[in-house]
Amino acid sequence: MKADVKHWQASNPLISVVMNKVILLNSRPIGKPTLGDFKIIKEEMATAKDGELLLKTLYVSVDPYLRGRMNDTKSYVPPFELNKPIQSGVIAEVMDCKNTVGFKKGDFVFGNLDWKEYQTSAGKGLNKVDGSEVDLSAYLGILGMTGLTAYLGLTEIGIPKKGETLVVSGAGGAVGTVVGQVGKLLGCKVVGITGSDEKAAMLKSKFKFDDAINYKTTPDLKEAIKNACPNGVDIYFDNVGGEISDAVLANINKYARLPVCGAISLYNNTKPAIGPRLQPILLTKSATMRGFIVSDFSEKFPAAIKQLTKWLKEGHITYIETIVEGFDNIPQAFIDLFEGKNEGKMIVKVQ
Amino acid sequence: MKADVKHWQASNPLISVVMNKVILLNSRPIGKPTLGDFKIIKEEMATAKDGELLLKTLYVSVDPYLRGRMNDTKSYVPPFELNKPIQSGVIAEVMDCKNTVGFKKGDFVFGNLDWKEYQTSAGKGLNKVDGSEVDLSAYLGILGMTGLTAYLGLTEIGIPKKGETLVVSGAGGAVGTVVGQVGKLLGCKVVGITGSDEKAAMLKSKFKFDDAINYKTTPDLKEAIKNACPNGVDIYFDNVGGEISDAVLANINKYARLPVCGAISLYNNTKPAIGPRLQPILLTKSATMRGFIVSDFSEKFPAAIKQLTKWLKEGHITYIETIVEGFDNIPQAFIDLFEGKNEGKMIVKVQ
Repeated sequence: MKADVKHWQASNPLISVVMNKVILLNSRPIGKPTLGDFKIIKEEMATAKDGELLLKTLYVSVDPYLRGRMNDTKSYVPPFELNKPIQSGVIAEVMDCKNTVGFKKGDFVFGNLDWKEYQTSAGKGLNKVDGSEVDLSAYLGILGMTGLTAYLGLTEIGIPKKGETLVVSGAGGAVGTVVGQVGKLLGCKVVGITGSDEKAAMLKSKFKFDDAINYKTTPDLKEAIKNACPNGVDIYFDNVGGEISDAVLANINKYARLPVCGAISLYNNTKPAIGPRLQPILLTKSATMRGFIVSDFSEKFPAAIKQLTKWLKEGHITYIETIVEGFDNIPQAFIDLFEGKNEGKMIVKVQ
Repeated sequence: MKADVKHWQASNPLISVVMNKVILLNSRPIGKPTLGDFKIIKEEMATAKDGELLLKTLYVSVDPYLRGRMNDTKSYVPPFELNKPIQSGVIAEVMDCKNTVGFKKGDFVFGNLDWKEYQTSAGKGLNKVDGSEVDLSAYLGILGMTGLTAYLGLTEIGIPKKGETLVVSGAGGAVGTVVGQVGKLLGCKVVGITGSDEKAAMLKSKFKFDDAINYKTTPDLKEAIKNACPNGVDIYFDNVGGEISDAVLANINKYARLPVCGAISLYNNTKPAIGPRLQPILLTKSATMRGFIVSDFSEKFPAAIKQLTKWLKEGHITYIETIVEGFDNIPQAFIDLFEGKNEGKMIVKVQ
C-alpha cells in the first residue's frame, strides 16, 4: 500500500554543483544547527573496485538523534568528525558490483551510509529491501528504524495492557504516529501531544488517537492532560523531554512505565537543562523511566518487522511522510525537524 | 548472633507523664520536622476485649519515609491524620489475649502499629517473631522492612552481575549498609557515599565496602566517584536524591540500573526541588531508573527473609543499630534521621 506523502520544497542557499556531491560537517552546531554548520563539496565520481558495490542514493533519512552526533561528546554512537561526511539511514540502488556476494545490479538496499550522491560499499551492514509492495521510503520510516523504535520502545518498556492510558509526546512525528497506532491496536487509550492544531486534528482523524493536545496553545498542559486522561497515565512514551514531560509526569499512575526515546526539546541546549527533580515522583509512583536506542533490542528486529509489515498490509497502521526533494536540501530538512515542520517521517528524495 | 548496638540518649524537652502514652501528629511539618509537630498525650490504659490482643510496645522503628506521610499529599501510603497516633514498624509483646487465634501470651509480634505504649489489636497484619537466635530489634532492620528493601531493591531492580560496580548513597544508613554487603556477596565492587569520615571508615572496616566517600568533605564528588569507580557505575542504589545523585549519574555506564529507594535529601523541601534533567543521560546510557517501595515485591518476602537469615546466621552479613531509649524520645530520634545522627538502623527501645 502507498501512504500519503506531503511534498514540500525547502529553500536552500547552498551551492549546486554537479558531479558526486558530499555533505560534510563544517562546524559543530552551537544550539540550533544552521546551514553554515554543513558544507556541500564535490568529489570525483565513485567507482566500484573488486568486491565492492556502487550505490546511488535514492532517499536519505533525517532524524533528530543526528544532532547528538554533531556534538563532540560521547553519546550512544561516536560523534561525527569535522570535515567528514555525515551519515544516516539511506535507501540506495546498486548501480554496479564487482564480485560481491548477495547483491546484484538493480537491488535496493538500506544502510547507514554517507550523505553522498554516489558511494561504494563492501556490502557490510547493508540490507536488501523490496519496493514491490510498499514504497521504498517506508524502509526509512514505518518498516525501518522509526517503526522499530516505536514498536519496541512501546512493547518492551511501555508493556501496554488493555485498557491502560498511553500518552505520547512528539506525537505527530515519525515515531509518535506509530506509537499511537500500535498502542490502539494493543487496546490502550491513546492521547498525543503535538505542536499544532493541524497535527492534533490529523492524529485523531488519520491515526485514530483518542485525543490530542496542542501544547503550544493549551494554557495549562498539566490540567489538559489530566482532563484527557481521567484514569491517569500508565505509559508515557517520551520523545521530547523538558516541560511537556514535566506536565505528563504530574499525571502518572502507580507503576507507570516511561520509555525515553528522545529529548528533542533539549538537543539544542548549550547548557544542561534544569527542571524538577524526578526521583520523588518515580519513588512515590513506583514508576520506571528507561532510556533506550532501538539497537538495544536488535535481537527483536525480525519479529517486529514481521508484525509491522503485517499490520501495514492489512491496513491496520498507516504512516505519513514529509518528503523534501533534492540532495542539497538535506541540511535544511534536518534543521526543520527542530521547528516541527515535518508531519511524520522527514525524508529527502535525492533522485 | 548479636550485632553491635550503639546506645545513644536523645535530649527531650517533652512531657513525661505515666499511664498509657500516645504520640500524635500535632501539626504537619513545614520543611524539617520539629518537636512541636508531635504531641505526647496520656490516655486510659488499653485492655483486650473478646477476640483482641493486648500489646506492649518494645521497639519502635523510625524511618525517613514517615516524613512523607506527615504531609497532606498522596504518597505511596495515605497521610497521617492530625491529632491521630503516628504509626510505624513496632515489635511488641502479647500481654493478654481473649480468644484470639494463633497468638498466646508471651509471643513477640511485628506489625505496623501506633506509637503507643500499649494498644489492642485483632491480630490482623501481625507476624510472630522469634528472638531466640537474633535480637528482636533485628526484625525492624536486617530481617524487617529495611533488610527486605535493600535486598529486593538491589536484586529485583539493580540486578547485579559479578564484576559490576555498585554505588550506594546513604550508605551508612539502615538500608545502605545491607545493600553494600549484599552487593559484595553477589560479586560487585561496592562504593558507599556517606556523610562523615567515621561512617566512611566503618563502611570499609565493618561492612567490607571496597571504598567509601564522605560527600561533605570531598571537594568534587563527581570526580571522587570517577576515581573510586574506574570502570564506571553499573548500579546506583539511590537513598538520597539531590546533588549526590547528580554526581553519581554523571558516572553511569551504558545499561545502568538505578533503583530509587529514597530521596532523604529532598523530603524536607517545601518546594519541588530543581536539578539537571535526567532524560538526556538516561537516553544516552540506555539506563533504567525505577522507584519502588518494598511492598511492590511482597510476593518475594519469604524467599528474601530466608536468604537474609541464612547469611546473618552464617556471619556473612552484619548490621548496626542506633538505639535510643525511652518512648518520649521517639520524635527526636525521628528528627535526628535527617541530620544523619544514626549509624545503621535507628530504633527506639521503649521498655
